Amino acid sequence: MTKAYQELETYLETAQALQTALTLFEWDNETLAPKEAGAYTGKMIGALSGEYFRIMTDEKGKALIKACKEETDLSEVETAIVREVEKEQKRLDCIPADEYREFAELTSESARIWAKARKEKDFKAFAPVLKKILDYQKRFASYQAKEGQKLYDVMLKNFEEDFDMKSLDQFFAMLKERLVPFLKQLTDSKRVVDDSFLTGDYSEEKQEEIGRFLAEYVGFDFDKGVMAVSAHPFTTNLHNHDVRITTAYNDHVDDSIFSVIHECGHGIYEMGIPNELTQTPVGQGISMGMHESQSRFFENIIGRSLAFWEPVYGKLQETFPDQLGKISLEQFVRGINKVTPGLIRIQADELTYSLHVMIRYEIEKMLVEEGLDVEKLPEVWADKYEEYLGVRPKDVSQGVLQDIHWSQGSIGYFPSYALGSAFGAQFFASMKKKMDFDGLLRNGEIRVIREFLRENIHKYGKLKTSRQILKEVTGEDFNPQYYVDYLIEKYGRIYHIDR
Amino acid sequence: MTKAYQELETYLETAQALQTALTLFEWDNETLAPKEAGAYTGKMIGALSGEYFRIMTDEKGKALIKACKEETDLSEVETAIVREVEKEQKRLDCIPADEYREFAELTSESARIWAKARKEKDFKAFAPVLKKILDYQKRFASYQAKEGQKLYDVMLKNFEEDFDMKSLDQFFAMLKERLVPFLKQLTDSKRVVDDSFLTGDYSEEKQEEIGRFLAEYVGFDFDKGVMAVSAHPFTTNLHNHDVRITTAYNDHVDDSIFSVIHECGHGIYEMGIPNELTQTPVGQGISMGMHESQSRFFENIIGRSLAFWEPVYGKLQETFPDQLGKISLEQFVRGINKVTPGLIRIQADELTYSLHVMIRYEIEKMLVEEGLDVEKLPEVWADKYEEYLGVRPKDVSQGVLQDIHWSQGSIGYFPSYALGSAFGAQFFASMKKKMDFDGLLRNGEIRVIREFLRENIHKYGKLKTSRQILKEVTGEDFNPQYYVDYLIEKYGRIYHIDR
Repeated sequence: MTKAYQELETYLETAQALQTALTLFEWDNETLAPKEAGAYTGKMIGALSGEYFRIMTDEKGKALIKACKEETDLSEVETAIVREVEKEQKRLDCIPADEYREFAELTSESARIWAKARKEKDFKAFAPVLKKILDYQKRFASYQAKEGQKLYDVMLKNFEEDFDMKSLDQFFAMLKERLVPFLKQLTDSKRVVDDSFLTGDYSEEKQEEIGRFLAEYVGFDFDKGVMAVSAHPFTTNLHNHDVRITTAYNDHVDDSIFSVIHECGHGIYEMGIPNELTQTPVGQGISMGMHESQSRFFENIIGRSLAFWEPVYGKLQETFPDQLGKISLEQFVRGINKVTPGLIRIQADELTYSLHVMIRYEIEKMLVEEGLDVEKLPEVWADKYEEYLGVRPKDVSQGVLQDIHWSQGSIGYFPSYALGSAFGAQFFASMKKKMDFDGLLRNGEIRVIREFLRENIHKYGKLKTSRQILKEVTGEDFNPQYYVDYLIEKYGRIYHIDR
Repeated sequence: MTKAYQELETYLETAQALQTALTLFEWDNETLAPKEAGAYTGKMIGALSGEYFRIMTDEKGKALIKACKEETDLSEVETAIVREVEKEQKRLDCIPADEYREFAELTSESARIWAKARKEKDFKAFAPVLKKILDYQKRFASYQAKEGQKLYDVMLKNFEEDFDMKSLDQFFAMLKERLVPFLKQLTDSKRVVDDSFLTGDYSEEKQEEIGRFLAEYVGFDFDKGVMAVSAHPFTTNLHNHDVRITTAYNDHVDDSIFSVIHECGHGIYEMGIPNELTQTPVGQGISMGMHESQSRFFENIIGRSLAFWEPVYGKLQETFPDQLGKISLEQFVRGINKVTPGLIRIQADELTYSLHVMIRYEIEKMLVEEGLDVEKLPEVWADKYEEYLGVRPKDVSQGVLQDIHWSQGSIGYFPSYALGSAFGAQFFASMKKKMDFDGLLRNGEIRVIREFLRENIHKYGKLKTSRQILKEVTGEDFNPQYYVDYLIEKYGRIYHIDR
């Protein structure tokens, strides 16, 4: 290790610790903190964010990066860390300190305002906050934007570096072109899948029990992680030895089951970061898209397959004998794959899911690029749902207020879900050639699949880009064809549709 | 507000935010964090502590304090803040930065090592950690010590400014002189109090339900606070709008009931700090002794009285009909006041409690001043219990490993419990002259008592010293006579002892 690099490491430690503290505050806010704490804790979060900002933008840090870049004998990891730190410095350096801090204070409270507004079905209570968040994000994007770059492109790239409106327009156009007619064919077929047994008197306690069982079963290590409850399921982590997932319970047992498996996908990704990388600027998953590729891989490709449930369905039946005792494995698996164009993204089936995402993508574009008024959101939202999915929300809690993301300041995040699903399907196509995927699941050897993902994706942290990983694992560049083929093959089979 | 003071406020903000983050990490460590997180999170805690230390000891802060002290028009609160900050600067300035940070990292892990050692009844697993903690604390005390000042006196004063070994020796000597013969008289009387109904199949769920009910009943505001589970009950707070208590459950229902009421006493103190003071260096309870005066006041003087239970015992019976349905209010109140010289401090009755504290005080003195070897602790501990209480622990989990305090680095804390009990009894004697104490409790008007405490104690935060408050509320200086008189009167009555 060179002297300049060593200095950089010491220098980064406080920044890393501040980020970890901010992560813990966010976790605490959404899982436990008392409801009146918001404004007071927000001040502290503002001060910590301000301190982080100060460290990341001061001259000493820039000089250290400059010195490190002149070094010739940095390791691969060290080079990547220098690159990531420089990127972060540049991202922050263009933002005025007070605006950065105000935004941190704002988002420390806004998720709670959103949760309350959602509960009370009161969009007006959230609209002014969303307006402020949008204004900040547009301003920040304008500071970051290169000559002629669109603001929404800047936002998108913050979540997934290699994608912009041009490539996403193409991606969604292809999904629309192939999935919308297929979905029509499917609904026209009038084939009925029964999933009524998934709704009922499923006690929260038993749902938690099976959630913990499944989390462990797919490989979430409770010695290095915890599970709690929040309004909207999410995953976060302090480092690779402290990874946290949440879920929420209602009377649809599949909601909690698949949200747990989904968050475990995120969690297992973060648990798979090597000790050498954790607590450094490259010690996280590379992008939101790659993260969603893992979570949706676990949730859908693994979790909604017949092979996965073969060894564990008996356990589920034991837990809920009254509700599932008489439902066969095959009935259950058909039920959890029922296609129903619906209102709620996180309850959506795998086939219609990306259409939910597409709606959000189109709306974000309108908000950022076309000056759509925030007040008009409920209406625009409802119209798009009617157009693409044939359903119209009765109230905002089932419409525009259903997702937490905007309230956390995340604009440009949603496309990651669809991209991630496509990454996952591309991995799946390639993995099936290398291993007996279904056979492993049937034998309860999910460990082999998880190890493959760890070895080929997780362990790199931010050392490689999404596209690099995609190419190295599958031998080709991003190709959403796999995703569409996967969906049409799977749901054609389930619904007996000729293709 | 003067210019210098305004600068000081901005300057202190980051320090305050760092302290708040450290509090949250400590809470999280003891209530939720996964077991393998320790070492990794510890590094972050070390970095944040180091940053706090840097801010509190840098020249800029000292210059600001100097400038503020030259101002003539500071308000009372501002003057107190300047005084507290200067005190903290002096406390830290004498400690080398790396030692301070190492100690923070050590104590971020040691409570977990203690919990594991206690569970496994393995003192050897904790002894090396305790030795390190003791060494650090002795070293820190030696840095702080004035010419000729004893190290244990320095430690004691960090928790309770106006007390040292001299005054505590006198205090404990008086307790010993009057309570030990009284206890003998009481046990010799062979009068039997039945409390067998307090032990049994009390479900954790129902204990939590009644715990929450009682917490609200005594005035803990769940909009500004939360309750969780930890190995050892404690209270902490981020500010006056986020106050957190924990409890633990076992098959003795009175353990959780009275630990909840005890922690509520701490919590209500912190919820009573005015908005003007919270998140400033004077926005906490004045001392550990005053804090314990409030927690033990709620637990014992209020919580173990007949009058308190009159309006709520029915609710307790409803919650546990099988266990308490046939136990009368009077039987119950006698049961919760049963005197049994025992092994566990936090389960001790009110009468023998201070003897438990005295043992710890004597042992701490031996560790700090007389070079007692840590390895000999289990033996010394057992001998003292045999001598003062006539019982000998069978293993270290019931002996020297029962308390969390040393593992958190708190040496010199224990006497606060006995002092606090004495403060509380002195408040009680004076309050009874001003209000119909029992009548209020009987009518469910505990609010009036709580308001008196808030108005006369809580609202001052650190603006007044313990002794000042004691004098202003009761009209006289510290007088432990009230405590002994209270105990002998109460337990003489319950056990029909002629005095």
